[in-house]
Amino acid sequence: MKTLADLGEKEIVTLLLQGVRTTVAVGPGDDAAAIDLGDRYLVVSTDVITRTSHIPDGMTDWQVGWFAAAVNFSDIAAMGARPLGLVMAYTLPRDMPFTRLESISQGVNDCCQAVGADLLGGDTKEGTGIVLAGTALGLVDKDRILLRRGAREGDMIAVTGPLGLSAAGYAAIRNDIDAPLAVKALLEPQPRTAEGMVLSSSGKVTSCMDITDGLAYSIGELSRQSGTGFEVVWESIPVGDGVAEVARKSGVPLEDLVLHFGGDYELLFTFSPQASQPLQNALGGRMHIIGQVKGRENQLIVGEKATPLDTRGYEHFRR
Amino acid sequence: MKTLADLGEKEIVTLLLQGVRTTVAVGPGDDAAAIDLGDRYLVVSTDVITRTSHIPDGMTDWQVGWFAAAVNFSDIAAMGARPLGLVMAYTLPRDMPFTRLESISQGVNDCCQAVGADLLGGDTKEGTGIVLAGTALGLVDKDRILLRRGAREGDMIAVTGPLGLSAAGYAAIRNDIDAPLAVKALLEPQPRTAEGMVLSSSGKVTSCMDITDGLAYSIGELSRQSGTGFEVVWESIPVGDGVAEVARKSGVPLEDLVLHFGGDYELLFTFSPQASQPLQNALGGRMHIIGQVKGRENQLIVGEKATPLDTRGYEHFRR
Repeated sequence: MKTLADLGEKEIVTLLLQGVRTTVAVGPGDDAAAIDLGDRYLVVSTDVITRTSHIPDGMTDWQVGWFAAAVNFSDIAAMGARPLGLVMAYTLPRDMPFTRLESISQGVNDCCQAVGADLLGGDTKEGTGIVLAGTALGLVDKDRILLRRGAREGDMIAVTGPLGLSAAGYAAIRNDIDAPLAVKALLEPQPRTAEGMVLSSSGKVTSCMDITDGLAYSIGELSRQSGTGFEVVWESIPVGDGVAEVARKSGVPLEDLVLHFGGDYELLFTFSPQASQPLQNALGGRMHIIGQVKGRENQLIVGEKATPLDTRGYEHFRR
Repeated sequence: MKTLADLGEKEIVTLLLQGVRTTVAVGPGDDAAAIDLGDRYLVVSTDVITRTSHIPDGMTDWQVGWFAAAVNFSDIAAMGARPLGLVMAYTLPRDMPFTRLESISQGVNDCCQAVGADLLGGDTKEGTGIVLAGTALGLVDKDRILLRRGAREGDMIAVTGPLGLSAAGYAAIRNDIDAPLAVKALLEPQPRTAEGMVLSSSGKVTSCMDITDGLAYSIGELSRQSGTGFEVVWESIPVGDGVAEVARKSGVPLEDLVLHFGGDYELLFTFSPQASQPLQNALGGRMHIIGQVKGRENQLIVGEKATPLDTRGYEHFRR
């Protein structure tokens, strides 16, 4: 009999979705679901974090709260929606000091304030471990929603910020390397809701998602859902400060940190070449072109050489 | 240093809410939050269930899924909203067979279908125990939302169905008493979304909530939030079939099963006496008048004798 560990998170989700009938405009399979409210879509996403999966030793309680909120708002950002609010459900051990829960809750509140959303409510129950399940809501005009599908041959590919910092933070903790900025990036991800709203309101973006599970996996997702190949230029990918140093000290290949680990929560998006200048203007420094939509395969260009891009991402349950 | 167990769930929530600033129409403290969408409110509620708190031995996986969905839709029902959809976040042990998750998911799906809502999405992560966090969404016209506050002197008090069955189911399991209907009521609660919509559309209901934590606690809540006393007549409370027998066999007082245990998920509501007949007609058999809003204190009338009603409810963390 197959266990969850045998299948891995992505196969589990695929199998479960086979049984779901849904009438919503955008159902399970994108960053968030979208419900038709007439002129607008209500965008909804849920993400759960646990000590097993996400919470490294040394993460403060405030950071745990911030992180749980941030990963949810990141999904709202990926749809180009304005964040509306968040609900949080906690299970916590009964012997936890209340001051710790206060710190978690403060982290949640601060992240809500940072993106201009309301904390709408919550639920707190006793459990054996720390589990934080968040659900974020957003609103977006119907003709401005950003989806994983829609990239077209000839489109440019861009990201909203440097990559690899979170991965470097993780490698730094594991290998006892001093890299406080990278560790902070890992533990305090910044949801790109402002950038998502800019991308949405431009009307020029053809596909978008957040880079939760690594750039390579995300490229694979946009490619699969859009039905076209992506060509990414290694030298054009913005790499976070100090990532190369952590790669060298830890022995983890730089390519793995930048392409495969994930946790950066920047947005990956595509657009027609004519929109390049207006988007650059609107996003300021927060736009880095990394390649173009081209052909049928996903390729990584390093120097003169093109190699197939491995688009497998990090998976929960599997190890 | 105070732990969560020292404070109890209700004190924890009160303390946490002191730090929350919110701009929403109905914030934390009611069954669900309500967000202003112009002509309508979007109603949002989250509830988490865990093996520690909710899942008795013998509960099937399908029932676990049904239960997790049902308790969330019950909060939507309490606001008088039309259920729109549900997201579910799971943490599950990695050695769980996939067929078990399929059964849980089927229970969730079946409950969504039963109330006419969509399963919007989910998240599945590895954890040490089974945790299911649901978030339900609903829509209600702004002038038709049902809140915990609003009961007025002279209003009638009613419930949508018999009470005590879930408590009897729990006592039956603990004491090895054969009471399959009561056990089914405990494990497969029916969210009263249809009744909630009838109450909302009547425009006659002055306050409402669901009876998650027992009738007495719920009376205390409506009383506290409305600022008036409630007088409940013991003989008028509809008691579920077989509850008295379980009380006798288990030695648990019938009053405790009916008033204090909770888990019935019927709706408790108030309305002006003139609305009694139209509401009876609209709800068919699903309305039982149990008392009236009167004075400053909460009283239970048994025979000719009035005693103060103990409105403490079941609390998580505390034991």
